[in-house]
Amino acid sequence: MERFDKEPEQGGRMCWFTALVLAVQILGLSAVIIVAVWMGHFRGGFAWQSDPAKEFNFHPVFMVIGMIFLYSDGKCILAYRVFRNMKKLYIKILHGMIHLGALIFSAVGLKAVFDSHNLAKNPIPNMYSLHSWMGIITVVLFGLQWLSGLTSFLFPGLSMGLKKQYMPHHVFWGIAILTMAGATALMGITEKALFMMKTFPENGSKIPVLDYSHKPPEGILMNCLGIVIVTLIALVIYIVTRPEYKREPSPDEEHIELVN
Amino acid sequence: MERFDKEPEQGGRMCWFTALVLAVQILGLSAVIIVAVWMGHFRGGFAWQSDPAKEFNFHPVFMVIGMIFLYSDGKCILAYRVFRNMKKLYIKILHGMIHLGALIFSAVGLKAVFDSHNLAKNPIPNMYSLHSWMGIITVVLFGLQWLSGLTSFLFPGLSMGLKKQYMPHHVFWGIAILTMAGATALMGITEKALFMMKTFPENGSKIPVLDYSHKPPEGILMNCLGIVIVTLIALVIYIVTRPEYKREPSPDEEHIELVN
Repeated sequence: MERFDKEPEQGGRMCWFTALVLAVQILGLSAVIIVAVWMGHFRGGFAWQSDPAKEFNFHPVFMVIGMIFLYSDGKCILAYRVFRNMKKLYIKILHGMIHLGALIFSAVGLKAVFDSHNLAKNPIPNMYSLHSWMGIITVVLFGLQWLSGLTSFLFPGLSMGLKKQYMPHHVFWGIAILTMAGATALMGITEKALFMMKTFPENGSKIPVLDYSHKPPEGILMNCLGIVIVTLIALVIYIVTRPEYKREPSPDEEHIELVN
Repeated sequence: MERFDKEPEQGGRMCWFTALVLAVQILGLSAVIIVAVWMGHFRGGFAWQSDPAKEFNFHPVFMVIGMIFLYSDGKCILAYRVFRNMKKLYIKILHGMIHLGALIFSAVGLKAVFDSHNLAKNPIPNMYSLHSWMGIITVVLFGLQWLSGLTSFLFPGLSMGLKKQYMPHHVFWGIAILTMAGATALMGITEKALFMMKTFPENGSKIPVLDYSHKPPEGILMNCLGIVIVTLIALVIYIVTRPEYKREPSPDEEHIELVN
């Protein structure tokens, strides 16, 4: 806390902080818009189980909304660095709710991809690619992280001593899971791009071929989606790990250092 | 520094630290061995410009040695957490040398992939995939990071005040570049896997087709390479960011906090 006492220019710091959080919002929304345009415009739009190929298109959109956009937002709030004057309990609940939303979107996103494999005319095997392995590991870790966060910090809640011991691990895993989600998204983009470079008549799929190697607009858009995701995650981790953006505890509340 | 004074069980902590650093070595070497077996055994071995398809096989091996294995090792030393009793200047030089080695391996790895595209019977376009974009961004950032590290901390060296200001950014970018290298490696594995699912007779290439979706040994090996890389990077970041593993400065040396 000494740092805060030593530095008088809190206004300037908070101005930077606000700009960074705004950048996170813009990048997160951009990622969602880009993936929606990609699937909606270039990949023929959306359907549910009646058209498994188009059901697939929900997968990238829902995973980006859940594991990238909402998860990033929850993270910025996780660090209790936004809404600095709100009661800590409410921020905790908000943090938990946003992450619950992220989990639900991810679950539906997973359902969409399994359906698109299993309900295809010639069913496609599941869980063979590195993308799928990493994706499942990431979502399972996220579920465990959510549950242990809930039981440790909200209900029933650990003792202050145990909370303090667990906090740095919760922070570490929160960042690790976000990073893994980002890497998995990049692999997903790569997988989709390369699948689109060939036709799959054997699956009854009419996916239009993408001439990826000649840099068509769709290819550029996909690559930009990847770069936006990487920039977003780097920025979130920067914000969450900078000590000067930590929320200062109000005098009446118990406080656990976020970074050990 | 208070933490060290407060905790008497330094022996136990250092024992854990040694185990973690050992695990990093084992994981790093495993990644190198797996990628070498993959390229050497499953993908037909190595050649230089006389056989561009086999020259490609140097690309994954050299990038893993440079951007993953050496970079990780350099990072553990960067944090000056290994060789605790060595003079700080020597550790800095060692840190710089290992990273220079990483840069050289990466440069040769890049040469191999550009050659394999440009010298193919029907040349393959360069720099169209997200993997290539991310890879170039990562290596360029790494080069800049190395140069600014050298000029700031070794020769000619900044003033103590500026060093202190720059250090947290150097640490942040060091970790960010490692993470980006990992994500790029995972995309590279994904790209290679999916390219191998089809033949490219138009390029005169005789890459044997991989039946990735039926989980052949090569597919499993590639996925394991990805998981080893992710585990390695997570562990390195854990070691580098844990405050209790920081190197304690000896009384006679100037000291800059590694984590701000």
